[in-house]
Amino acid sequence: MIERKKTLEVNVSWVKIGWNNPIVIQSMTNTPTADVDATVKQIQELANAWSELVRITVDNEQSAQAVPEIIKWLKQIWIDVPIIWDFHFNWHILLEKFPEMAKWLAKYRVNPGNVGTGDKHDDNFQKFIQFAIKYAKPIRIWINGWSLDKQLLKYNMEKNNKLPKPLSDKEVFIDSLVQSCLLSVQKAEEFWLPKNKIVLSIKISDVQDVIQATEKLSSKTDCPIHVWLTEAGGSTKGLIASAAALGILLQEGIGDTIRISITPEPWIPRELEVTACKYLLQSMGFRDFQPMVTSCPGCGRTSSDKFQILAKQVCDEINLRMPMRKNKYKWFEKTKIAVMWCIVNGVGEASNADVWIFFPGNMENPRIPVYVKGKMYKVLDSENVFENFMEIIEQYFKKEI
Amino acid sequence: MIERKKTLEVNVSWVKIGWNNPIVIQSMTNTPTADVDATVKQIQELANAWSELVRITVDNEQSAQAVPEIIKWLKQIWIDVPIIWDFHFNWHILLEKFPEMAKWLAKYRVNPGNVGTGDKHDDNFQKFIQFAIKYAKPIRIWINGWSLDKQLLKYNMEKNNKLPKPLSDKEVFIDSLVQSCLLSVQKAEEFWLPKNKIVLSIKISDVQDVIQATEKLSSKTDCPIHVWLTEAGGSTKGLIASAAALGILLQEGIGDTIRISITPEPWIPRELEVTACKYLLQSMGFRDFQPMVTSCPGCGRTSSDKFQILAKQVCDEINLRMPMRKNKYKWFEKTKIAVMWCIVNGVGEASNADVWIFFPGNMENPRIPVYVKGKMYKVLDSENVFENFMEIIEQYFKKEI
Repeated sequence: MIERKKTLEVNVSWVKIGWNNPIVIQSMTNTPTADVDATVKQIQELANAWSELVRITVDNEQSAQAVPEIIKWLKQIWIDVPIIWDFHFNWHILLEKFPEMAKWLAKYRVNPGNVGTGDKHDDNFQKFIQFAIKYAKPIRIWINGWSLDKQLLKYNMEKNNKLPKPLSDKEVFIDSLVQSCLLSVQKAEEFWLPKNKIVLSIKISDVQDVIQATEKLSSKTDCPIHVWLTEAGGSTKGLIASAAALGILLQEGIGDTIRISITPEPWIPRELEVTACKYLLQSMGFRDFQPMVTSCPGCGRTSSDKFQILAKQVCDEINLRMPMRKNKYKWFEKTKIAVMWCIVNGVGEASNADVWIFFPGNMENPRIPVYVKGKMYKVLDSENVFENFMEIIEQYFKKEI
Repeated sequence: MIERKKTLEVNVSWVKIGWNNPIVIQSMTNTPTADVDATVKQIQELANAWSELVRITVDNEQSAQAVPEIIKWLKQIWIDVPIIWDFHFNWHILLEKFPEMAKWLAKYRVNPGNVGTGDKHDDNFQKFIQFAIKYAKPIRIWINGWSLDKQLLKYNMEKNNKLPKPLSDKEVFIDSLVQSCLLSVQKAEEFWLPKNKIVLSIKISDVQDVIQATEKLSSKTDCPIHVWLTEAGGSTKGLIASAAALGILLQEGIGDTIRISITPEPWIPRELEVTACKYLLQSMGFRDFQPMVTSCPGCGRTSSDKFQILAKQVCDEINLRMPMRKNKYKWFEKTKIAVMWCIVNGVGEASNADVWIFFPGNMENPRIPVYVKGKMYKVLDSENVFENFMEIIEQYFKKEI
């Protein structure tokens, strides 16, 4: 198992980030926050998919007014997921005018670059921190290139240029992001925010840059770190680039909470970003959420798409009915299922699975053996193979076999 | 940039694996090899998507007979991708009976555990190596748990149990896989196959196991390594788990050729495994294939799905027309495009892109600015935004703007 870096523990309502707590999954809504119905529905979907924190935009008065209503409604339908505030340039107006909103939200996400510039910056940041203290809320400080303190960057660039062996501009830029983040922590502490109320992150959309910046940040702080690749892009690219960036950092023990930030195609449910986080954490061995399905890619020996369909059906069924089964069967989340085509992968490499099935040959209506814990249990035929296979899996969950 | 481990250079026809050559993308067909039409069509699709090597199953006489026909046909349509042989238990029969097949294939993939067991094993393996020498073909040796030499594993387990601090069974198992792989290299060399004809890999479907085994293998050999996570599963899980496993190894400088082995849903084109490899290598900075599209995930400030649709359309267009444009414009593959929703990401964080567009607000028919190299170039309206945006990108490729 990977040894995780021990960070401070930050409480976001009842969810704990950092220290030796499980890596927390986050997501964000894309409904207009002022639309209470749509936002409650999407938060419910994200939470059911296993988002342990959900972030919402509160960028105008209508949204601010909707917040308490959204959270009360969620509690009524037993969705107790802490809601995080993603604020905009008008944060101070909303914080003053809507104390109910400030109270109901569980955490505030702040980009210090957005709380006023120049002389006003420190005053505004102090004001923000005072609100966090008043409402006893943790914050996430995030820094990005766009809103990075221009003076700091300029100073670092000039200093670097005078070195006998100057770093590249890119390196100075990344170091400045990290430095700016740490300076913000220092200021927040000077303004009396306890350090165990702060989560940190750096917002970069390039894989190597985000790895380098987050490694540097982690080596210089004991605040928990939110790891994500911002604007990762459309589904396939976004999933691949995010899994690479997050996977590399998590393998180094860095990362206390994660989000996978993809642009889903309009017909793809928003929960995909949560499912992706679950797959990442479980496949790397950090957490167990649900049975994992191993399936082969098929090859020239695969004469029909039956096993591809079955693999998809089994995955969908597990995603769909997971929460219900999870509460019923404790061993559910550690169960391994395999759906294979040929005898090579079927009898051989599937043997680590608890329940596995393989399609044996090129016949139109094959006899399909199912193995449970290494022993042949039943032979199915292709009619109703999905239903019959799921029944065997259900029996396995019930420990009837 | 990541410093890659320097391995030996292995020639697979005109494609070079290892040393300081670019990391090579592989894929595998799932058509019956005996079906020449279907197999040629799929190889063409995989090669067009950027598969630099394609593996096919040759598991029976009909398939063996089809091989020369497939490759000749591919050459006629200018698809010059080396074809690799995935053999089955009947390799010796096919190799003797079909010399034409043996000649046309560019590389043989061998699992030493499948070339006879016990006393016969060494004779059979020698026979196999002699064929590779006769036809001057490189081989890939792959080892998996199922066909691992049982005697070797038993010996190692017993030896381990006698240690004062024995390793876990899992560690002994992984060490045995690595040892078995290295023993096979040693034998192949004893049978006079030059070492620069050998690529190595270990077939494991667990992320941490494949990382551990491949790291150990890499530290003990200078043969190039084929990195992949076998039977990674359905699309989302398979992409995530593969990108994490391969990403972590590539970041350590390990891996000379890769495959992403997913079970695609039946309606997903087989090329997805190739596209995924491209995204992984390019997002990590190893290779440039095509313009990368950065896009934000959308949030509560995103009042319609227009930008999600546009992001998808732009990605699809680039994937579809990539090969043609690549030959026309040298800077094509390094171009960065951004499709954003709000002003925060739009003007700010997209500014690293060469051409970017952002949807500015909650209006039904917004005015949509397009920036080229940091300067506002044009304002589009939502009608025909895709066509007009692609025209601007095309102009950028042509260096007209």
